[in-house]
Amino acid sequence: MAHGKNAFYAQSGGVTSVINASACGLIQAARERRDKIANVYAGRNGIIGALTEDLIDTGQESDAAIAALRHTPAGAFGSCRYKLKGLDKSRAEYERLIAVFKAHDIGYFFYNGGGDSADTCHKISQLSATMGFPITAIHIPKTVDNDLPITDTCPGFGSVAKYIAVSTREASFDVRSMAKTSTKVFVLEVMGRHAGWIAAAGGLAASASHDIPIVILFPEVELDEQRFLQTVKEKVERHEFCTVVVSEGAKRQDGKFLSEQGTTDAFGHAQLGGAAPVVANLVKQALGYKFHWAVADYLQRAARHIASKTDVEQAVAVGRAAVECALAGQDARMITIVRKSDDPYRWETGTAALADVANVEKFMPREFITADGFGITDACRRYLAPLIQGEDYPPYRDGLPDYVVLKNQPVTKKLATEFKVGK
Amino acid sequence: MAHGKNAFYAQSGGVTSVINASACGLIQAARERRDKIANVYAGRNGIIGALTEDLIDTGQESDAAIAALRHTPAGAFGSCRYKLKGLDKSRAEYERLIAVFKAHDIGYFFYNGGGDSADTCHKISQLSATMGFPITAIHIPKTVDNDLPITDTCPGFGSVAKYIAVSTREASFDVRSMAKTSTKVFVLEVMGRHAGWIAAAGGLAASASHDIPIVILFPEVELDEQRFLQTVKEKVERHEFCTVVVSEGAKRQDGKFLSEQGTTDAFGHAQLGGAAPVVANLVKQALGYKFHWAVADYLQRAARHIASKTDVEQAVAVGRAAVECALAGQDARMITIVRKSDDPYRWETGTAALADVANVEKFMPREFITADGFGITDACRRYLAPLIQGEDYPPYRDGLPDYVVLKNQPVTKKLATEFKVGK
Repeated sequence: MAHGKNAFYAQSGGVTSVINASACGLIQAARERRDKIANVYAGRNGIIGALTEDLIDTGQESDAAIAALRHTPAGAFGSCRYKLKGLDKSRAEYERLIAVFKAHDIGYFFYNGGGDSADTCHKISQLSATMGFPITAIHIPKTVDNDLPITDTCPGFGSVAKYIAVSTREASFDVRSMAKTSTKVFVLEVMGRHAGWIAAAGGLAASASHDIPIVILFPEVELDEQRFLQTVKEKVERHEFCTVVVSEGAKRQDGKFLSEQGTTDAFGHAQLGGAAPVVANLVKQALGYKFHWAVADYLQRAARHIASKTDVEQAVAVGRAAVECALAGQDARMITIVRKSDDPYRWETGTAALADVANVEKFMPREFITADGFGITDACRRYLAPLIQGEDYPPYRDGLPDYVVLKNQPVTKKLATEFKVGK
Repeated sequence: MAHGKNAFYAQSGGVTSVINASACGLIQAARERRDKIANVYAGRNGIIGALTEDLIDTGQESDAAIAALRHTPAGAFGSCRYKLKGLDKSRAEYERLIAVFKAHDIGYFFYNGGGDSADTCHKISQLSATMGFPITAIHIPKTVDNDLPITDTCPGFGSVAKYIAVSTREASFDVRSMAKTSTKVFVLEVMGRHAGWIAAAGGLAASASHDIPIVILFPEVELDEQRFLQTVKEKVERHEFCTVVVSEGAKRQDGKFLSEQGTTDAFGHAQLGGAAPVVANLVKQALGYKFHWAVADYLQRAARHIASKTDVEQAVAVGRAAVECALAGQDARMITIVRKSDDPYRWETGTAALADVANVEKFMPREFITADGFGITDACRRYLAPLIQGEDYPPYRDGLPDYVVLKNQPVTKKLATEFKVGK
């Protein structure tokens, strides 16, 4: 049996509940094409594993273990927050990557991440060609922030959106129960430092059959405190309660994050707080309503137990498509999700040139936000609704999700040199 | 068809993801015994609905709507935080309740709540007898805090425990992925102001097959900061990461809640914060580790989407048993869960005298907490494990749980007098 070159795969940046589903799709597709791809080496802790020649031999994992990645959240090989800079500043790192890839006969570079990793992926492709060891570089989109351009959505986002929509509906039922004598305002803080896609998902908790008063604070709309308080007041007077979904990236009119309000603890240390308690206290002080607040933080992006089936399927699909794209001889591409219709939702994978992807952020379009700045429009609903469709429950053992932990056996090093990772 | 007296049912205190399942069991059981129970009237917003003669006619709800209560979180009739005091101080309120019950021919009083409502239930029974209109009063246990005595567990707790165990496992997978270059410590704040049962459930995230370093801060154990920091440091050095589960009721050695650390915002207002950011900042300042923190708040007790099947079944069972108990002529009883064996878990319902229940709080026994004070013992695992067994997913529509909203039609008032609820 003729064996091809090896492939390198790495997970980058903040992990999601379905990034391993992309790894699953990719490794399964590669195993079906052993004539072209001998083995898949994963970077331990992302690109750092490549720089330090700390590669994981995924060939040591059983088919069952790889299949279980489909239902396992977070990064099974470890991820990292490590951004390679431009070729002028980080040339030694890029050259080291090519050296490691050459030593391990790697012909395919698959990078699973957000905007920064798309940029890195692009540079690997360019530099490897000029260094006489051309590597096919394909970017697999992943980000809960949903801020990559061209693709209809980013795997990882749909599941966070579902978690936030479900949690907002559930907590709203709770507050409604308590409103007569107790809590009237519930504030939920969600991720999204620059773009309000996740916050927007909170708006899905309300529907024609569920009249739930929701006020959303987007990072794209500077907070007008008085209008916000007036809106909350009107909703509480009409419904007896109100749910506020605030993005961690929500800002005051002076441009500062709500969460950076100079709070100090008893020792005078700056308090690293959340936006939710700030909003809750604002409401309390101005309107006197009893409140509760929650900060979902990692729970939202790790919540594989309530993942969107659509999202899981798309995550697997982009992993598989990356292999197909590479084997079709394409290079420097990002796999995309292409929406064919809203209802019924139909989609397929496509590709985009990395040159068009790198360092472009996609924000919520203004027509997705209601005129008052505190809600989502029907156009936004049409966009979001399909992305949270379907459940894809993991198997359970002893009452808990049976997530897989891989063996993560190292590949024997071949280089004599060590490389010190900067930062 | 001979018709019996009416029954009154009310939800009390903080709601749970399965309190409506108890309502479902109770109303279904009552509908099967229309010879004895003509109709079930629910209090709108709990006991306040009885005081103000604002009763809901559950007879107007379809069988399908009542069945849907089984999978709908929070209080479908509204709950309240309103504690009736002793007979000496609140006699007018008790007398008003009896007057309303008399006007509506109510022979059965079912009160679904925690310790305070058990006490109220007991007094209703006593007073109604002395007032010549004897009412059978049965308490249906409900509390996420799991702090009622005698019963093996309290419906509501198992589902919160499952949510916390699942979320702790998921977030731990996330942190482990990020630990190499980013977050090393994740802090999750959970409910439980006095008793550490919910915090203990975080310990279930680790198991023989899941070696996850977890440090739990119980309300029962005063925080020794130096030992805590040392423990976190050791875990991070060994595992590269650590997950901290902190109860909202965790206290410093001076007896103050961690969450009451005198933090102030930019305007000098006292900041109503959480314990999680306090713990996270403590770790950051002493050890320098990058952290993330989450506060689950209402999300944990409203999370019907990941309810424990055991808990749902017990919640339904205590509702049904309350009807059977009342029709069997018992009075002033609380329904209990009786554990017959740990593994396989076998249980049945029983009853306890309200005199033995009221105002007794059940804390974590010391033998459930490890010697170092930061973990759970095998005995605790044996107790907790069965309570999170099984999944009981709600139906979904458009990607969201299809929770029912009842019509909640009022019963025509019969009393000429209005009653002003105090407080």
